[in-house]
Amino acid sequence: MKNKPDITNWVCPLPLRNHANIIAGHGGGGKLSAELIEHLFVPAFKNDMLDNLGDSAVLDFSPHRLAFSTDSFVVHPLFFPGGNIGDLAINGTVNDIAMRGAKPLYLSTGFILEEGLPLDTLGKIVETMGQAARQAGVQLVTGDTKVVDRGHGDGMYINTSGIGIIPKDVNIGPHLAQVGDVVIVNGDIGVHGIAIMSVRQGLEFETVIETDSAPLHDLVAGMLAISHDIHVLRDPTRGGIASALNEIAQASKVGIKLDESCIPVSPPVQAACELLGLDPFYVACEGRLIAIVSPSVAEPLLEHIRQHPHGKNAMIIGHVTNDHVGQVISQTGIGGTRLIDMRVGEQLPRIC
Amino acid sequence: MKNKPDITNWVCPLPLRNHANIIAGHGGGGKLSAELIEHLFVPAFKNDMLDNLGDSAVLDFSPHRLAFSTDSFVVHPLFFPGGNIGDLAINGTVNDIAMRGAKPLYLSTGFILEEGLPLDTLGKIVETMGQAARQAGVQLVTGDTKVVDRGHGDGMYINTSGIGIIPKDVNIGPHLAQVGDVVIVNGDIGVHGIAIMSVRQGLEFETVIETDSAPLHDLVAGMLAISHDIHVLRDPTRGGIASALNEIAQASKVGIKLDESCIPVSPPVQAACELLGLDPFYVACEGRLIAIVSPSVAEPLLEHIRQHPHGKNAMIIGHVTNDHVGQVISQTGIGGTRLIDMRVGEQLPRIC
Repeated sequence: MKNKPDITNWVCPLPLRNHANIIAGHGGGGKLSAELIEHLFVPAFKNDMLDNLGDSAVLDFSPHRLAFSTDSFVVHPLFFPGGNIGDLAINGTVNDIAMRGAKPLYLSTGFILEEGLPLDTLGKIVETMGQAARQAGVQLVTGDTKVVDRGHGDGMYINTSGIGIIPKDVNIGPHLAQVGDVVIVNGDIGVHGIAIMSVRQGLEFETVIETDSAPLHDLVAGMLAISHDIHVLRDPTRGGIASALNEIAQASKVGIKLDESCIPVSPPVQAACELLGLDPFYVACEGRLIAIVSPSVAEPLLEHIRQHPHGKNAMIIGHVTNDHVGQVISQTGIGGTRLIDMRVGEQLPRIC
Repeated sequence: MKNKPDITNWVCPLPLRNHANIIAGHGGGGKLSAELIEHLFVPAFKNDMLDNLGDSAVLDFSPHRLAFSTDSFVVHPLFFPGGNIGDLAINGTVNDIAMRGAKPLYLSTGFILEEGLPLDTLGKIVETMGQAARQAGVQLVTGDTKVVDRGHGDGMYINTSGIGIIPKDVNIGPHLAQVGDVVIVNGDIGVHGIAIMSVRQGLEFETVIETDSAPLHDLVAGMLAISHDIHVLRDPTRGGIASALNEIAQASKVGIKLDESCIPVSPPVQAACELLGLDPFYVACEGRLIAIVSPSVAEPLLEHIRQHPHGKNAMIIGHVTNDHVGQVISQTGIGGTRLIDMRVGEQLPRIC
């Protein structure tokens, strides 16, 4: 090998030593994912921009600021109620860009196809991707296709990377929540994760639960037209709103207090979660955003969100505090409080 | 499913019908890859930029023009003489951007890890990526990690996407070759493919053949400092120089005539190709570029390339003609000619 590993800059490898091998939880968006990033990727890739971890990087091409994001999709199965891996891959990267307040413009697609994948299946998924891209107003401008041996790829994996342009005077990032800010969610949570579970391993629920996967850039653009006092936007995918809020609390060095009775969970998702022993706070959404905004603009923003097709069930679910810095606390219906911690691994593997 | 496939815009599905399923050749960079792009991806993703197929897209963020590229790496095995999947993934995207004449700046990394992958292996590869990125002067600014079930991922797959800035007055693309232009290659061909073959399935050659994987942006920047009369740059990866030159001949609507005696092939690669029944023209390189340039600047450019560490064995290997448009013809040592066609599939699967 030309380049021998230089382990001198592996920072505190202790948490990694607990697991000598990759386990499912390393991809789950919880503590194990965070440790992998903090102790392995960041030291090896060391640079200022990576330290500011969000769903996307902000690149300065003066006078423009661009949001740049990447996501690989390994969802299993490829088709599920309300969508497939194709529109999920488009909406996922569109949303990561939109969570910087940026207008998504250009996407790349990287396909890893398994030998034996029916071309008909590929055709359906690619067609869905094209439709999702047109719906989101983005162009798929460059791509790559690799084929791996039969049995080594679950049909297909898709990577999408994307570029969007951040409007002037918009500054949104996971580290920008301020004490006193209001926490809004644009609808009922946990739908996507339960939609995937409903078709996996023969599980079936009484009601068909369709994924909430949707492009959120238009909702975000409308919110920014009302006010630029939006500090944080985040799509709570892997690990659900619990993980997303924990990351924000830690990045912004604030506490977040939730009012549990205000957090919308649809009855079918609630029933499915009870059946499966899942906490909906930790179940992935793919068409939801958390917005952390100045209290002065919370009401007009909520009003706007509720009038948007992707925001009908929006709610104010909590606020930012200087108590319990780095932690998320929820006030339960009966007046008590509980700690909404970050999980170690993941409840539901392979949901995106 | 929300979006039913609209097959009315699937253009001429005939070539696809010959294979109802994905086969290895669809990822080989030959005719099957081209058919997949032409008949499936382009109709579904329809837009002007995708029509101009190069290794990267050119994006207008006035006053800047950016090159944007993506590549997934599925090389098997993960480690091979002279490198591993990590530096290959960095250099591959750095080079795709450099082939627009652009200065590569920012890369994203998307990891698909297989459950059970030793963290030590991941650590070595990630360390190599960091070193390769620093060597190429690019920053790894955003990333994503997914984990797939044991047995479904060959250890790891890596996607890198990248952004570079195209200097003013530089216009380089696969469609810009002109009749009379001179074809230069920066060194001996086929090294990377043979390096991979040498460690696969127990094959061993007398000499250790190390990959030629290298970042070529600095070589390109030096060439552009001498002249902007560089019309096409292309790194001949999958499918080797034969496939790259065929794509250029077709995109530019010109013929390309090669002088076979001038094409550098090292004796060990020549010997390995003879042993394996391979044509080195079709074997992948990862540190080579084809430059198609104005005849007036060919000699000074060749001189410059030969003085660069990545260009010592550079040669003028042919020229662009208005005969046999869309085809590549090679003049053999004994005075005859042969057609260098595009292969249907690939000689060597999973080499990048």
